[in-house]
Amino acid sequence: MKGFVFHGPGQSAWEEVPDPGVKDPTDAIVRVDAVTICGTDLHILKGDVPEVCPGTVLGHEAVGEIVETGSDVRTVRPGDRVLVSCITACGRCRFCREGAYGQCQGGGGWILGHRIDGTQAGYVRVPYADLSVHPLPGAVGSEDAVLFADIFPTAYEVGVLNGGVRPGDTVVVVGAGPVGLAAVLTARLYTPERIIAVDLAESRLDAARRFGADAVVAVGDGPEQLIADLTEGLGADVAIEAVGVPESFEMCTRMVRPGGRVANVGVHGRAATLHLEDLWIKNVTITTGLVDTSSTPTLLRMAAAGRLPTSSLVTHTFPLEHMEEAYDVFARAADTGALKVVLGRPRHDTLAVPTV
Amino acid sequence: MKGFVFHGPGQSAWEEVPDPGVKDPTDAIVRVDAVTICGTDLHILKGDVPEVCPGTVLGHEAVGEIVETGSDVRTVRPGDRVLVSCITACGRCRFCREGAYGQCQGGGGWILGHRIDGTQAGYVRVPYADLSVHPLPGAVGSEDAVLFADIFPTAYEVGVLNGGVRPGDTVVVVGAGPVGLAAVLTARLYTPERIIAVDLAESRLDAARRFGADAVVAVGDGPEQLIADLTEGLGADVAIEAVGVPESFEMCTRMVRPGGRVANVGVHGRAATLHLEDLWIKNVTITTGLVDTSSTPTLLRMAAAGRLPTSSLVTHTFPLEHMEEAYDVFARAADTGALKVVLGRPRHDTLAVPTV
Repeated sequence: MKGFVFHGPGQSAWEEVPDPGVKDPTDAIVRVDAVTICGTDLHILKGDVPEVCPGTVLGHEAVGEIVETGSDVRTVRPGDRVLVSCITACGRCRFCREGAYGQCQGGGGWILGHRIDGTQAGYVRVPYADLSVHPLPGAVGSEDAVLFADIFPTAYEVGVLNGGVRPGDTVVVVGAGPVGLAAVLTARLYTPERIIAVDLAESRLDAARRFGADAVVAVGDGPEQLIADLTEGLGADVAIEAVGVPESFEMCTRMVRPGGRVANVGVHGRAATLHLEDLWIKNVTITTGLVDTSSTPTLLRMAAAGRLPTSSLVTHTFPLEHMEEAYDVFARAADTGALKVVLGRPRHDTLAVPTV
Repeated sequence: MKGFVFHGPGQSAWEEVPDPGVKDPTDAIVRVDAVTICGTDLHILKGDVPEVCPGTVLGHEAVGEIVETGSDVRTVRPGDRVLVSCITACGRCRFCREGAYGQCQGGGGWILGHRIDGTQAGYVRVPYADLSVHPLPGAVGSEDAVLFADIFPTAYEVGVLNGGVRPGDTVVVVGAGPVGLAAVLTARLYTPERIIAVDLAESRLDAARRFGADAVVAVGDGPEQLIADLTEGLGADVAIEAVGVPESFEMCTRMVRPGGRVANVGVHGRAATLHLEDLWIKNVTITTGLVDTSSTPTLLRMAAAGRLPTSSLVTHTFPLEHMEEAYDVFARAADTGALKVVLGRPRHDTLAVPTV
């Protein structure tokens, strides 16, 4: 088969790699029918995630069909259409028992396209398949379902739930890329009073407006003053950081009210400054997190029921073998307007789904 | 009367000041029978809290007797023995309605010895008396009761409750001064598996052991390695920062496990570095806070019932007029071994209380 292989910082190729096979009795082999590229993959290519070894097939999001299962797999079988989650879970360690699958100590966590070969290939071996793939409702097409492998549960769990969004809140989402837009969509489930999206790019602010942001503001146009004006000078109840640079994180800490919450979703490569000389007295809560994907079944059910529109997040589709072109379009999002790019087999399904 | 007056950084004096009188119908005037000095007062003297105007009487903790009340005060009357809380609460603003009295927007919050004249004097005017003083159970002596004006609710609410201490947890308390020791005592209410105290000074580590820390470790003796060894390399469930310098805060962020919590209690004058490049993936929660004192009635009740020993925190007592000497002893705690110093009128009560 072919796969997209990381060969060290700045070096990668779509090339022939060995077909995966069952190694452990809890493994499943999945034929990849739809796969996407994550901002994290770009970080890996830059060398920001040093634990990824050269030779690793990248990718941690996919939809596909089970083609083989190990002898201990109970919940799926060959022929089942499944979502491959970005998080693999042993189900037995202390963290899995508490639903903190992202922190699995039994060899799971974020391993696909990170510690072991991932989903950007013809086939992928998924360890601990019982807890690491999700059977898919037929009503959700593969192009949309693949968004539930990472970005929707990440935005929801690490942004909206960690941020404790409540009805009536003022919510600021800093960064209107795919995860920030998914945070806007899932914050709406809690009926905040208003959602304000902040970004550098007008095209992304337009997208945020389409996805339900009540106000949008460019970084250069004084987002902090706007938030203060809207909240009698107090600040937002919740600020969701969906960029991953110190400047946006620090902006979030300045924009929340006393007693407010900053939910960091961004993947950071550098330290930020925490202004404790201002914040010690403000009763602020700051959370960080890798997604657990404990919400994935619920979110999939909501999407199937038409309660969570997703499809306009996918701006570009490609055949699987056009992986390098897809990376290029995704990496140049500022020029191409790309949000999520999805790659699939020629005959992968395209069922109708609700749109925004 | 006499009062301890801040005259700008490095300048202060115990000197004649006007007697306070009722200015608003919700005021009470309290005769100060016992008062203490807070680490925050030392910060003010250094000039670290610039909003304190020269001419202000310092102090935000006292026990005394009501001598006069405004026409709207309903819950206390002259002759009542009360605790003057460090937090004044209007009871009507959005924050007070949610129990977040520390963030009161109606002219309260931390105002005594900060925005208005405080308790280090013969008498003090307490605005919004109904919600800002607490009638005292007779079983709690004034020397002990005064610890409930600030340090016990601060350690409990901002440390233990914000830190989410649970039965079975490993809790690290960094800084074994009065607030850190109160955090050790109140963390025990939740029966953690172990409490580890970290400090620079052997005398404070000895105190931490007496107050119930299961292990103590000097900063120079590798506290991070000890925590790792005790927790199978994972880290503590909760780290409580009770110092107020960047180094101790950053140590706390390194000592918590994935999914753990850092509760900042320290008053900080400088920014810290937040290593998001390590923390983004760790599901860490960081909280800051000024105390609300919503727990004060409960803590007082527990002290009266002998469920919360407090008295060994008071290492030195002075007559009220020896304020400058008391400041000196408290400021040189490393030499004097001072934990809390309490000043009182000659005849203030000294009822027996449970000891550690």
